[in-house]
Amino acid sequence: MSSIDVIDFDEMLSPIRYDHATGVLSLLDQRLLPAEEIWIECRTVVEVAAAIKDMVVRGAPAIGVTAAYGMAIAARRGESLEEAATLLRATRPTAVNLFWAIDMMLKPQRQGGAFPGMIPEELRARSIHTMDVLMCLKIGEFGAPLLPQGGVLTHCNAGALATGGYGTALGVIRTAHKQKRGIHVFADETRPFLQGARLTAWELHKSGIDVTLITDNMAAHMMQRGEIQSVIVGADRIAANGDTANKIGTYGLALLARAHDLPFYVAAPLSTVDLATPTGRQIPIEERSAREVTHVGDKQLAPDGIKVRNPAFDVTPAGLITAIITNVGVARAPYEPALAALARTMPGPLL
Amino acid sequence: MSSIDVIDFDEMLSPIRYDHATGVLSLLDQRLLPAEEIWIECRTVVEVAAAIKDMVVRGAPAIGVTAAYGMAIAARRGESLEEAATLLRATRPTAVNLFWAIDMMLKPQRQGGAFPGMIPEELRARSIHTMDVLMCLKIGEFGAPLLPQGGVLTHCNAGALATGGYGTALGVIRTAHKQKRGIHVFADETRPFLQGARLTAWELHKSGIDVTLITDNMAAHMMQRGEIQSVIVGADRIAANGDTANKIGTYGLALLARAHDLPFYVAAPLSTVDLATPTGRQIPIEERSAREVTHVGDKQLAPDGIKVRNPAFDVTPAGLITAIITNVGVARAPYEPALAALARTMPGPLL
Repeated sequence: MSSIDVIDFDEMLSPIRYDHATGVLSLLDQRLLPAEEIWIECRTVVEVAAAIKDMVVRGAPAIGVTAAYGMAIAARRGESLEEAATLLRATRPTAVNLFWAIDMMLKPQRQGGAFPGMIPEELRARSIHTMDVLMCLKIGEFGAPLLPQGGVLTHCNAGALATGGYGTALGVIRTAHKQKRGIHVFADETRPFLQGARLTAWELHKSGIDVTLITDNMAAHMMQRGEIQSVIVGADRIAANGDTANKIGTYGLALLARAHDLPFYVAAPLSTVDLATPTGRQIPIEERSAREVTHVGDKQLAPDGIKVRNPAFDVTPAGLITAIITNVGVARAPYEPALAALARTMPGPLL
Repeated sequence: MSSIDVIDFDEMLSPIRYDHATGVLSLLDQRLLPAEEIWIECRTVVEVAAAIKDMVVRGAPAIGVTAAYGMAIAARRGESLEEAATLLRATRPTAVNLFWAIDMMLKPQRQGGAFPGMIPEELRARSIHTMDVLMCLKIGEFGAPLLPQGGVLTHCNAGALATGGYGTALGVIRTAHKQKRGIHVFADETRPFLQGARLTAWELHKSGIDVTLITDNMAAHMMQRGEIQSVIVGADRIAANGDTANKIGTYGLALLARAHDLPFYVAAPLSTVDLATPTGRQIPIEERSAREVTHVGDKQLAPDGIKVRNPAFDVTPAGLITAIITNVGVARAPYEPALAALARTMPGPLL
């Protein structure tokens, strides 16, 4: 391993692989999991942007890493980085990691050369990827001691598949599992895109972590019966005041956790914290296609002609969040000073 | 129309049709809606029991009416009513209307003859069917004035398809719609069986009532944005103290309604009130097949080898219920005396 190969991406179940010999970015097609493990190859920034928009890759940190490689591919092909950035920024509006990673790639880069055959942009993208996994490992360390023994509920997929590897919320669960803290996981299936059923259940089962799948509307019942002791989720954007945008359904879970006196944790790298967004009210919420709700694959679930809503995210007010677990420490209310203090310690890309 | 044909079942979208000329019970196969409108014919009580167990017909009042016809079919064939009752009681444990209707059929019957060619058990079953629709119409009358203008959220299907016709929660919505009360409906899709997407959206759209489909986990977000002004659901069993078993997800909605200061209504005929069950703790909760969660039709959503939970119902504590709307009046807390008083006014079958 070279000096920047501090991470074994395969071991971390990274859904993103970049081959600097060919300039090909391979993305695990998360739309097809768990039925098929197909990797899609992207050779141009247009293909990378399409893969983000079409949710071949999803999860705020993973989108950021993918966009970084998209910028590197543009650079390698001698294309305008500004145009590549514009294209990539237009893919999805809510996850701030996307914008963060693109900005990182636009900053003047130290000339590298530590890795023969890679241009500086490729090195920088790889460094963002590596840093993302390292941040997940740190989140796991900070978060694991917070999980009480017993059932821990998670929503959507904030796992290896949603990041450069290892995961944020699932990173905490992975570390708690390694530390034998006696947890077992309830995974919300997470309609309409079923990230919980398809991705979280798949990656936890693959890693030998005890996981029970439930539909989203079973969470309250499980809490009422004392089967859930904590809730942990990822984030797509955390405002300066701690308000957190995450997958639709997160806000409801936070209310249910409060009603049952359960801790509700958000786990995210500092690249998800957006101090430029004062509160949750300023976070744009992506509305996706009605077809995601009315169909599963080709199977139509609902009649033609009805109205459908499909907001992809919701905003959980900071007041419902027990703690925000980041790669540099754990923030608790009042979040505004706590997050600002943590943000000052945020490391940049490794190179 | 004869004297007992006070109801036009077709107009009421009844999912249950009995032909006394042939002794055939036809059930609209609700598993295939909205894609196909197929009627399944039952000629024996064994076939009726299978149709209830396999959810060809579902919804507490509809199950009760179907079981009554099953008893009539057994009587017509000269079979033991006690054995028919045992078979039908074993189909589904939670909805109390099933047991209520079977008990009604086992009571000594006044000899009828008002309808030529029908045996007394057929007349009694038809009377239970007719009474169910009449009860829904009364529920609609009592409930409609309670719905505030704006968005009303409902869960599962407590509509014409869940009853002898017209519906309980959707009966209230139907009457409010007729009275031009300015409501529009949000329908939770209601995983795993998708009664909201498949049945509620279908029957409201067919009736020209404005309906917007959302996934279960969007309800909190819609409430947060002020798009929902009230919640109304049906019930499978209401305990003497007002605790209410209904489709999984109902309890969570009641908590979310409370958190947003929205009224939360339960609509059900008195045949759903079970004074013999003191509280929700004594209500048995049916756990159904994992396959309902892991598959939609033939399409597998989740990986093999994981654990799955599938409780079909949950219990909403009476304290979260604003009012229980019945066919003889509206009960409010304290529910124990209120429900007991209403129960004393419960009419029996018409014949």
